[in-house]
Amino acid sequence: MAAQRLLVDIHTHVYLPRYAAFLRSRTSVPRIFTRASPESGKPEERLLILDDEPSGGRPIGSQYWERDEKLKFMDRHAIDVSLVSSANPWLDFLPASTAHALAAELNDDLETYCSTGPSLSANLKRLYGFGLLPLVPQATTESLISTVEQVASLPHLKGVIMGTRGVGKGLDDEALDPVWAALEKAGLVVFLHPHYGVDKNAWGEKANGHVLPLALGFPFETTIATTRLILSGVFDRYPNLRVLLAHSGGALPQLSSRLASCVAHDPLVASRLRHDARYYLGKLYFDAVAYGSEELGFVSDVIGRADKYVSTGASAAVSSAKGTDGTAKRRAGAQRMLFGTDHPFFPPLGETEKWKSVVENLEAIDGVYGWDEADKDAVRGGNAFALFNLGS
Amino acid sequence: MAAQRLLVDIHTHVYLPRYAAFLRSRTSVPRIFTRASPESGKPEERLLILDDEPSGGRPIGSQYWERDEKLKFMDRHAIDVSLVSSANPWLDFLPASTAHALAAELNDDLETYCSTGPSLSANLKRLYGFGLLPLVPQATTESLISTVEQVASLPHLKGVIMGTRGVGKGLDDEALDPVWAALEKAGLVVFLHPHYGVDKNAWGEKANGHVLPLALGFPFETTIATTRLILSGVFDRYPNLRVLLAHSGGALPQLSSRLASCVAHDPLVASRLRHDARYYLGKLYFDAVAYGSEELGFVSDVIGRADKYVSTGASAAVSSAKGTDGTAKRRAGAQRMLFGTDHPFFPPLGETEKWKSVVENLEAIDGVYGWDEADKDAVRGGNAFALFNLGS
Repeated sequence: MAAQRLLVDIHTHVYLPRYAAFLRSRTSVPRIFTRASPESGKPEERLLILDDEPSGGRPIGSQYWERDEKLKFMDRHAIDVSLVSSANPWLDFLPASTAHALAAELNDDLETYCSTGPSLSANLKRLYGFGLLPLVPQATTESLISTVEQVASLPHLKGVIMGTRGVGKGLDDEALDPVWAALEKAGLVVFLHPHYGVDKNAWGEKANGHVLPLALGFPFETTIATTRLILSGVFDRYPNLRVLLAHSGGALPQLSSRLASCVAHDPLVASRLRHDARYYLGKLYFDAVAYGSEELGFVSDVIGRADKYVSTGASAAVSSAKGTDGTAKRRAGAQRMLFGTDHPFFPPLGETEKWKSVVENLEAIDGVYGWDEADKDAVRGGNAFALFNLGS
Repeated sequence: MAAQRLLVDIHTHVYLPRYAAFLRSRTSVPRIFTRASPESGKPEERLLILDDEPSGGRPIGSQYWERDEKLKFMDRHAIDVSLVSSANPWLDFLPASTAHALAAELNDDLETYCSTGPSLSANLKRLYGFGLLPLVPQATTESLISTVEQVASLPHLKGVIMGTRGVGKGLDDEALDPVWAALEKAGLVVFLHPHYGVDKNAWGEKANGHVLPLALGFPFETTIATTRLILSGVFDRYPNLRVLLAHSGGALPQLSSRLASCVAHDPLVASRLRHDARYYLGKLYFDAVAYGSEELGFVSDVIGRADKYVSTGASAAVSSAKGTDGTAKRRAGAQRMLFGTDHPFFPPLGETEKWKSVVENLEAIDGVYGWDEADKDAVRGGNAFALFNLGS
């Protein structure tokens, strides 16, 4: 099987049946509730995952929990393999003991979801997954480490998905060092994903639906969390830790030279880092969920330039290479970017054969200036095979 | 004089002497206070412009108010012309009547600052400026419009600088429509600049100095404000309004296709806009204060692609052009980008001939892949001549 020509979706979500049932049992956010449809009058389920969410939440249905719906979506878009992850808000809202028990159950559920699903060959399934850790306040290190070990023991789980709160103080909390160490040792990929956005006062009074928190708040949260991780020295202490950023890293690529400049002007912060801030972007992985070719090309530029910034913070490296290597850097950076869909979010408004959100992300990859077909194949699937060690 | 080869700094700040004296008279933020230097024991002035600012604020000195210091800085970096603007937080913290009176005085002061300064030729001064409007809660439309008219009457003021709060509800407030209309009619450029960032809880507990609010919070604020302007239809209603974004538009370029996708999935928001969200980025101007060549090249890409997205929101345009026009779009986009320094912020840590922050921004322009020398000259000065109608 020519693995490098397969289409692999590394950003695709599920609410496993056990989780959906749990959300239905709740009376506060996050929850699933049933209402009469304003159009048809028939009962319909709605999902509320944020406080003060507009429009009575969003529609939810079997595409969130039925494996057959995931496979139908994959077939419709010619997606060969999916790395499925629980959708936000994961276990964030639970007390530590509940979170630990539910994480263990959901990890087992996801392993079954993958392992009993269809195969492409003797060594290759169509479904793999990211597990969950009980990352909530009061979680003990022992609970977190034992869950990392559980995930590592489940052959179809290739990493963990996590939000940005850690055990309550964010991901730059030293209390998480044993968790990073355990994830690094186990070779599990960390898929970093937003949920909270930023303070909603920023969005103002005008009715813009979910547009501002989704289009801006989500990527801002990822940007902040990743920047705090960089500044905390986690990537210096755990250089083999593999972190995959949702939504192409949010705004981090565009703000990375500004970040490096601000760090360089603050001797205290600079002294804590082994390298210029831009160096660390070359240690990260980025999904290709940005909906535009120019965005993807740019993200590959900042990954590809990262090696120039190896060395120290305060007396940082030369600022920019000259023109001629523009395409070489861009092609190098493509090796750390991976196709994703964000399914089942961003469903089409009408009945369509294909989802606009998926088509746009595929067209974006296809249209990147300076990527050749091999680079595009890598982003569409080859990089996922390498990162997650699939098919071996 | 070959205007297209001059170096023009469009992002350079001042606290005029009247404003600095006003800040010294205050006992709450924003304020300038004197303390004994921890190193030398000698009295030194410090600037506090944000609540809960770390490290006792930041050093401040004559480079903030002395015109000779501005000119020395310009000479040291071979900057021919500067468009000087008041630094944040402008008049944001004042009651409406005080803000109106102080705006008028500071606009007159800035006109004098420019008009009595040195000239490069009979028709070209070295200093021009952005005026201030009394954009505070309870400001009357009459007060705002009369100040726009004052600024328009002062020959060396070419625009206004403003923050993101408008008259209290942000820039997407319909109450500002007469202001946009007046600015458009007067041909004054709006320089949109951040001050507040986002809620500081996002930065966590670790001591990172000013790095997170400056590197991320500032550009997030600009991104939010500009997005809200776009979604409010201001650029549809005032198509000739010229808005210049600080810090290369923050994160807006990188999030613009995601924004377009979120809008396209919300029929209500999409129906309010005449074009795909990405179209509006081609109506804006961006400073080139991003400290990296890849960032600048990317910003020019999103400007250059904007025309593809003319038409409607919901059934948006094709997602991305194919590879071959990559450099053509990039060169077109360079025509809306303008060199800036952010002086006197980001001073060098030690005694240096040139400021690292300035050198980095110049090197960034010089290193953009796909820009030829004419494009770079345009960004360094030619675009400023055109936008501000200098030297005529």
